[in-house]
Amino acid sequence: MDKRPIGIFDSGVGGLTVMREVIEQLPYENIVYLGDTARIPYGSKSEQTIKKYAYQCSLFLKNKNVKTIVVACNTASSVALNHLEDNFDIPILGVIEPGARTASKVTKNGKIGVIGTTATINSNAYQSKIMEYRQDAEVIGIPCPLFVPIVEEGWEYSQVAELTAEKYLTELIEHEVDSLVLGCTHYPILRYTIKKVVGPGVRLINPAFETARDLKKVLTEKNLLNKSYDKPKYEYYATDIPERLRRIGGNFLKKEIDNLFEVSIDNL
Amino acid sequence: MDKRPIGIFDSGVGGLTVMREVIEQLPYENIVYLGDTARIPYGSKSEQTIKKYAYQCSLFLKNKNVKTIVVACNTASSVALNHLEDNFDIPILGVIEPGARTASKVTKNGKIGVIGTTATINSNAYQSKIMEYRQDAEVIGIPCPLFVPIVEEGWEYSQVAELTAEKYLTELIEHEVDSLVLGCTHYPILRYTIKKVVGPGVRLINPAFETARDLKKVLTEKNLLNKSYDKPKYEYYATDIPERLRRIGGNFLKKEIDNLFEVSIDNL
Repeated sequence: MDKRPIGIFDSGVGGLTVMREVIEQLPYENIVYLGDTARIPYGSKSEQTIKKYAYQCSLFLKNKNVKTIVVACNTASSVALNHLEDNFDIPILGVIEPGARTASKVTKNGKIGVIGTTATINSNAYQSKIMEYRQDAEVIGIPCPLFVPIVEEGWEYSQVAELTAEKYLTELIEHEVDSLVLGCTHYPILRYTIKKVVGPGVRLINPAFETARDLKKVLTEKNLLNKSYDKPKYEYYATDIPERLRRIGGNFLKKEIDNLFEVSIDNL
Repeated sequence: MDKRPIGIFDSGVGGLTVMREVIEQLPYENIVYLGDTARIPYGSKSEQTIKKYAYQCSLFLKNKNVKTIVVACNTASSVALNHLEDNFDIPILGVIEPGARTASKVTKNGKIGVIGTTATINSNAYQSKIMEYRQDAEVIGIPCPLFVPIVEEGWEYSQVAELTAEKYLTELIEHEVDSLVLGCTHYPILRYTIKKVVGPGVRLINPAFETARDLKKVLTEKNLLNKSYDKPKYEYYATDIPERLRRIGGNFLKKEIDNLFEVSIDNL
């Protein structure tokens, strides 16, 4: 048994939806969360820069004595995962692989939709990972740039959200996709509105949920679970404007955010 | 008379609305536009970083032999204008001062609205500049984070745009503002939708238009106008993803974007 915390990082607050799923499935684990809010968004940066940032985030967490690292950021997961595995000797999990694997398993007609930020969709990360698992799949990626600000405004149940979802998702409905990957950490907050638009026949896949499931499996197999059953300790770090993380993040996590600190990781 | 180009820079494509107004009012001037798309957004960066970026943008333009520089970016205008004036010996104009001055002149009841990105509104730049001109003004700032992605999607006349404008602007109508500063380079694209929501009694102030007017005045006074009346030459530079600038920017400028080049200014 291992009381060391799980480390989770993201370029911003979005990764808190991943933390929420981890808490749900591993309620006795201590967690350290890092949001690199000063350097968000990663999606528009070069591959080399993203690798450097992801390394610095991971090193910060390693210095907090974490037993494993979850890369909650889609961009960092797709670009930097191998680089991190080469540089750290603890298990490292990204969100792309679990999401893509699940999508390729649950689809019946082989038609899979992926929605995400423009950077994630253009990177083709989910699409090509799905094709690795299922060569005959037809994958349609749609960037939905308005979804992040809608969620950050707290408008997830508004008419604006619904009309926006209709504009983005009509093409997927016309293509008759039967499963849809929510390929951005913010999108699970919009799941009810998305479900309303795409209808009950489309299965929504939340990579955060699938990643937390993988994490539980890895910790169990490697005998790294915390079996103390004490009240777990959560710590939050942000590289800029921690108040914003507290305000928006509370809604993501459905929990008060205490133990929040501002840190600099530029020179790690 | 002076054939050297006017330099305009912004953190992204938004400054092309400023360029459009400059072309409208100074149709014989050559122009060099720089969009620092690799490092957008400036709004979440520290003051020191913004000053450095603005200096690098200005130096790039100075090396293109410009006769004057327009800082089209609201954040850089509010943070770095004095710093640039200290370091360059050509006239430098920002967008905040012309917008704020006009608002303080045209208001009758002294109630002025300012809309912009969260960073611009939180910086209080427009609000405090307006108060310098008119101490008894009541200025209400509202951040409108969805407006930029709506414009970048080309949805400016959609129902989503109208509903979003209603959500953001109702408070201003209730406060009975009689003038409204469009404090973000993207917002003039939404002017018809905004006007529809706030009604004919509210005067919209476009800082891009006011800045171009100031620029014409400065060039005239300093005898820097280009009086050759040749077909003017426009050059565009972007620090990342120039295709995006071409695609979105064409809509901003209402003109094809040729002569577009990718450049690096990090080491200037």
